[in-house]
Amino acid sequence: MTSFNTLNRVPSSANRWLMKDVLRDEMKFDGVLISDYGAIKEMVNHNIARDEKEAGRLSIRAGVDIEMMSLCYSRGLKELLEEGAISMDMIDTCAWRVLQLKNELGLFENPYKDASAEDEQKYLLCEEHRALAEEAAIESFVLLKNDNALPLDKKSGEKVAFIGPYVDTHEVFGSWSFPQKVEECVTIRQGVAKVAPTVNAAFAEGSYLFDRAHKMKNGVFYDYDREKEALMISEAVKLATESDKVVLCLGEHAQQTGEAASRANIELSKGQMDLLRAVAKVNPNIVTVVFTGRPILLEEVSRLSKAVLVTWFPGTESGNAIAKVLFGDKEPQGRLPMSFPYVVGQEPAYYNRFYSGRPNNGTLDQSYVMGYIDQIDKMLYPFGGGMGYTAFSYGEVKLSDTKLPVNGAITATVSVTNTGTREGFEIVQMYLADLYGSVVRPVKSLRGIQKIMLAPGETKDVTFEVKEEMLRFHNIDMEYVSEPGTCKVMIGHDSEVKDGAFFELV
Amino acid sequence: MTSFNTLNRVPSSANRWLMKDVLRDEMKFDGVLISDYGAIKEMVNHNIARDEKEAGRLSIRAGVDIEMMSLCYSRGLKELLEEGAISMDMIDTCAWRVLQLKNELGLFENPYKDASAEDEQKYLLCEEHRALAEEAAIESFVLLKNDNALPLDKKSGEKVAFIGPYVDTHEVFGSWSFPQKVEECVTIRQGVAKVAPTVNAAFAEGSYLFDRAHKMKNGVFYDYDREKEALMISEAVKLATESDKVVLCLGEHAQQTGEAASRANIELSKGQMDLLRAVAKVNPNIVTVVFTGRPILLEEVSRLSKAVLVTWFPGTESGNAIAKVLFGDKEPQGRLPMSFPYVVGQEPAYYNRFYSGRPNNGTLDQSYVMGYIDQIDKMLYPFGGGMGYTAFSYGEVKLSDTKLPVNGAITATVSVTNTGTREGFEIVQMYLADLYGSVVRPVKSLRGIQKIMLAPGETKDVTFEVKEEMLRFHNIDMEYVSEPGTCKVMIGHDSEVKDGAFFELV
Repeated sequence: MTSFNTLNRVPSSANRWLMKDVLRDEMKFDGVLISDYGAIKEMVNHNIARDEKEAGRLSIRAGVDIEMMSLCYSRGLKELLEEGAISMDMIDTCAWRVLQLKNELGLFENPYKDASAEDEQKYLLCEEHRALAEEAAIESFVLLKNDNALPLDKKSGEKVAFIGPYVDTHEVFGSWSFPQKVEECVTIRQGVAKVAPTVNAAFAEGSYLFDRAHKMKNGVFYDYDREKEALMISEAVKLATESDKVVLCLGEHAQQTGEAASRANIELSKGQMDLLRAVAKVNPNIVTVVFTGRPILLEEVSRLSKAVLVTWFPGTESGNAIAKVLFGDKEPQGRLPMSFPYVVGQEPAYYNRFYSGRPNNGTLDQSYVMGYIDQIDKMLYPFGGGMGYTAFSYGEVKLSDTKLPVNGAITATVSVTNTGTREGFEIVQMYLADLYGSVVRPVKSLRGIQKIMLAPGETKDVTFEVKEEMLRFHNIDMEYVSEPGTCKVMIGHDSEVKDGAFFELV
Repeated sequence: MTSFNTLNRVPSSANRWLMKDVLRDEMKFDGVLISDYGAIKEMVNHNIARDEKEAGRLSIRAGVDIEMMSLCYSRGLKELLEEGAISMDMIDTCAWRVLQLKNELGLFENPYKDASAEDEQKYLLCEEHRALAEEAAIESFVLLKNDNALPLDKKSGEKVAFIGPYVDTHEVFGSWSFPQKVEECVTIRQGVAKVAPTVNAAFAEGSYLFDRAHKMKNGVFYDYDREKEALMISEAVKLATESDKVVLCLGEHAQQTGEAASRANIELSKGQMDLLRAVAKVNPNIVTVVFTGRPILLEEVSRLSKAVLVTWFPGTESGNAIAKVLFGDKEPQGRLPMSFPYVVGQEPAYYNRFYSGRPNNGTLDQSYVMGYIDQIDKMLYPFGGGMGYTAFSYGEVKLSDTKLPVNGAITATVSVTNTGTREGFEIVQMYLADLYGSVVRPVKSLRGIQKIMLAPGETKDVTFEVKEEMLRFHNIDMEYVSEPGTCKVMIGHDSEVKDGAFFELV
């Protein structure tokens, strides 16, 4: 699919070099090329084409076989052909590729395959799929902080207040989930009732999700009323005062994230933050569950909460998955696939940046080093971060050999011990660093993960293969090579791991 | 000078392709190449060189003639030569270039030229230079907002309170101003006393400059005491209550800006914002003077002030220049050389971005367009913005011809009228846009400025030459060309100008 955007300042749909020279000729791709939604017509806005007809001409010359949504081909190709601006051969080539693909897929024999109403009835929301959805949700949840607040005890007899706009909403699909039976999504309230029916639980909406009346891309309208929100907050505070523990269920809306949903401000809404602050004044035992599709600012949320659980957008089994994790039937098993910054000015933030000539030591008392003078050079929660309900310790990294030859491999082994009182999963992460190269290299790169389960007190050796090919990169001549020199393998809990062992690439 | 940073992932000092192939061979530069401060040694941190000796080898191979500050050359070259890792010829070439330059400069005859103590005595802070410093300051000041608040009237008899950490400080040099007689800088308080001695003026510090105790790069220590600041603010509020007008003098410290001073948070300090908010509650007639070296967030400052004057770091004559502008002896004549955003998440912000396939109409009620869903696609103050003490209107852009041939030129003329009641300067700005190209082009590019002075009611035709060469760019084959097609010339007050005339590049 040819993207909307430009590469080397040319939109992909008109990028003959990229689509023909590179993709077709050099990479030998002989499949069907389709434009992204409206991308061909949009080249008029890009000021690359004078009009839709020319947009069609540029795209077919670049070898785009199918135009999605816009009509530059169907309206313009005939005229372009008559004018001699394109050849019949170009059209034939595109048509032939499409017909070939249809033939390979058997669509000439059965044009509606995989699309029976019977199948839909059978599979949509079946038990097996629901169980898989729950499992996927739980495996994606990331526990960022836990001061002995989680899991909650079903049998303590304590009163638990579930507060927030995400407590009782079915809107827990992420973006890009179009015609769906939203009402089939399990809410947190429903999940708690099912998973922990004997718990003394109470529920309150607490605040709106948005800070203003909001019409979503799908046409759904969200109302907003400042005075009503103030009332919601005071009701929530009353409930929190009467409760032993509070689970705050906050987040951004699914349509505030994903495609075409960039935000300049990555905080939770003011209403939700006001709710958190007000509740924190009357009850310190706060667990905050965060629905989000991006790194948002969690510094204050984390400060005011004893535990922070990021659930992203968990889908159909949302409420069951969350309740099972909160009450300890399951543990959260995800790790952060991105870095969560302290402040928005740290974005774009990523762990695998290049070595600097002036490294930052992570304090504010330095001069003339990389980074910011007003913000420690650190993430609030780093890439790879997250935990379950037990704790682990790591031994020293041991190598099978300290010399790694070209095309060869060595192993790096570390012993991991469950130091907690409960069995649990750990995602053991291996990072490699190249300490010497002809071009500047990342400070570290994730090159392996292993998920292990350990009983309390159990120790397990975890072994990773370190292959020379993992250390290859494009040198200044754009050759994909590794280079002799010292490297370091680090194995640990997240991307902030420092301990490791050195070896020589020879 | 070879920079600290990398190009194509190679630090400049080791970048043989850049320094030899491009700079020396292709661009025929035969002058002296010197490394930036410590840049050669820093390649060890960059992990490009194993040690200082190798850093020296890489640099001399790239043709760096002089190593600044670090000692990789003086400590390592002899050994490298003895090992045969470098040749005597490489050293001779560097030495010869340095000697040639010294010879050209006459340093063999007079090694200490331009450095007499007598000259220093004569020129440093002389009247002529002070006058020039004042003029330069005034020409750099940018007035961003003015709801009839400026200029202040010397003869009104009103009481004017000057409040803020910049009211009475000599620290008004920008960064990179090393051994200086800081005490010779004129403070705002001194400037007001000199420029407007009969005005009923009062002065208060109001708040600290920083939000915490702060040791600067130059070793100067800034104290901080929260309780004392609260007292300072309440004294300032008392003064503001008793005054007719308030001039708040706020900003960032010179060493919070410039080299090695990136900030993740670009607000004024909390103390200064608290001061502004407190003063605004008791006196709405606020003029805010802002010392800054970067775009900072001025949305709230602007909302709470009737006028906002950005003075950057005005140097020696700071106080005199500011007082002359505030009291109308002179008008501010600068225009913004960068864009000031509403929120930090809009950074990096610049006016001359590329055309998009999905343009943003500047409202929040759109879907699937470029930009943010929570922030209008607009700057608080755009590139080129700023004003003096009168107002101007612009007529239609008229062209000498609607066809512009290769190597040719046409003229674009606009009539500008001073619609205010006072004579004043306008910086007339011409922007060009290329509406059709083989690669995506900026929405507009500044291609001419003219500074004119008009009496009240006066109209002047301002003519710009529009040359074909102004429309050249690097095409996909990296040839520097223009291309036939429709272009637009816009002439107006700042980079948000939309009106203009179309012509064809033929």
